[in-house]
Amino acid sequence: MIGLSDIHAAAARIRPYAHRTPVLTCASLDAMTGARLFLKCENFQKVGAFKFRGACNAVFSLTEEEARCGVVTHSSGNHAQALALAARLRGIRAYIVMPSNAPTIKKAAVAGYGGEITFCEPTLEARETTTNRIIAATGATLVHPYNDPLVIAGQGTAALELLEEVPDLDMVMTPVGGGGLLSGTAIAAKAVSPHIRVVAAEPEMADDAFRSLAAGRILPSVNPKTIADGLLTSLGELTFPIIQQHIEQIITVSEEFIILAMRSVWERAKIIIEPSAAVPVGALLEKEADFSGLRIGVILSGGNVDLERLPWLK
Amino acid sequence: MIGLSDIHAAAARIRPYAHRTPVLTCASLDAMTGARLFLKCENFQKVGAFKFRGACNAVFSLTEEEARCGVVTHSSGNHAQALALAARLRGIRAYIVMPSNAPTIKKAAVAGYGGEITFCEPTLEARETTTNRIIAATGATLVHPYNDPLVIAGQGTAALELLEEVPDLDMVMTPVGGGGLLSGTAIAAKAVSPHIRVVAAEPEMADDAFRSLAAGRILPSVNPKTIADGLLTSLGELTFPIIQQHIEQIITVSEEFIILAMRSVWERAKIIIEPSAAVPVGALLEKEADFSGLRIGVILSGGNVDLERLPWLK
Repeated sequence: MIGLSDIHAAAARIRPYAHRTPVLTCASLDAMTGARLFLKCENFQKVGAFKFRGACNAVFSLTEEEARCGVVTHSSGNHAQALALAARLRGIRAYIVMPSNAPTIKKAAVAGYGGEITFCEPTLEARETTTNRIIAATGATLVHPYNDPLVIAGQGTAALELLEEVPDLDMVMTPVGGGGLLSGTAIAAKAVSPHIRVVAAEPEMADDAFRSLAAGRILPSVNPKTIADGLLTSLGELTFPIIQQHIEQIITVSEEFIILAMRSVWERAKIIIEPSAAVPVGALLEKEADFSGLRIGVILSGGNVDLERLPWLK
Repeated sequence: MIGLSDIHAAAARIRPYAHRTPVLTCASLDAMTGARLFLKCENFQKVGAFKFRGACNAVFSLTEEEARCGVVTHSSGNHAQALALAARLRGIRAYIVMPSNAPTIKKAAVAGYGGEITFCEPTLEARETTTNRIIAATGATLVHPYNDPLVIAGQGTAALELLEEVPDLDMVMTPVGGGGLLSGTAIAAKAVSPHIRVVAAEPEMADDAFRSLAAGRILPSVNPKTIADGLLTSLGELTFPIIQQHIEQIITVSEEFIILAMRSVWERAKIIIEPSAAVPVGALLEKEADFSGLRIGVILSGGNVDLERLPWLK
């Protein structure tokens, strides 16, 4: 059971390394959504995403003996960069398993943080075989992108900071992919503010969490095709029960509104967010649920975007 | 003579209306420039630019009798939006003279804030004739974009906030166009920290302030062609002597480095800045002067960009 004390411990552990990110408000976005938004800017976090919190908590929780053998993960996204940087800060090795077809820009980012990349075929099986081979050869500790209690506790620290700064929120929103950010946020928020509503947003085109919550069991993400490429994964065995317990609602968002939300945040709040981070704002703009008049904390999950390829430019 | 007390008065006057903008740091930009940067985010200011500070100070300094007749200015840029919003907040009229060929997006922004637009031919003469005609007809008070003591004092409040938050700066940098931001910043910074260096940055392709400082008299900006479209104007009779007295150096920056700086701030600091705001960062990246190891406050002047037309996309 992950509890508030784990999140407090994570907050103390990562404090020397992670940014305490600012909370911004934006009158134009408030007017567009009808709510009062408090934007927790994890796009300003180290490596440009909340993922650094969880990875950092996991890396700095290792014993000296474990640390000597390094850490390993399979990811081509923000978690890979986060783990590589956290490992570098502790002075240990990070083995990153990436599909051979990962974008060059992502390979370069991981290598730039000192991650040691092993390429594998782009299949689930190849990824796990390769990871297990590295563990067998090095003794490295696996740090899963979301299905890990230390990672979940680390991700929860963003909500903790948000509620310290803005205690009287009616609701907090995050996107949901594997559920690490959502479950950490839910544990923190519900412990600090028992009456707060925790709502997730998910791309319509990758709605496995929405379907899983309805079905009462984890349904896999089947061939998801969304611009929100941080949200392609399925829920994990650790994150799913936390989500079942705490989450009021998962709202699915069309691709059109994800792009509109991303552009609106760029234009109005003047900050760069990635498509995955735009999904909760998209839910508020699409207005399938009525949250007007509420004070809503939105965790903007990341800001890693290829500036050569903006979704509103053809 | 504009002094620190004027800037303190401006700060008190605009406090209910203007954002106290955050100061961000960015390890990647520090590594690229060799300095320690403190980014004062006026791109997050109301209307997306520092211009709101000066316009707001001028509008809320009017007597009741003056206010009843409204305010007028000629501008197609951020000052026009700023004056329109400040006037709306006081509940008075704002007459904005704009050239008929101003971009649609800028006309819409001014109209959106309730500004009453009068179009004129795109010449200096037409602009002044039209403005004077409005003043004669309405009794409105002219609020010049930079050659106005209240506007200069208002612009100085950004540096005041910056130095309250980061008192031990070695240097502060702003871009220079008409010199309102630069002169307000210089007065505030030198009064609070007498040993601070105040340095301006200007596009190589619009280097009239650089040439004016060298010549000892105001030289006009002749046919400037730069992407930094907020910096096309010449210095004013009020701003020039302040700049002569306080500014250590004006650095000119190539178009290539302005674009590189803009893109680097977007990519690394994850915030949207307009080309004019990128000019000081461009000066630090181009490294014609050696500021390595210094603690430098950079006033990021604005964030109004057409997201359909990014300078690094052909």
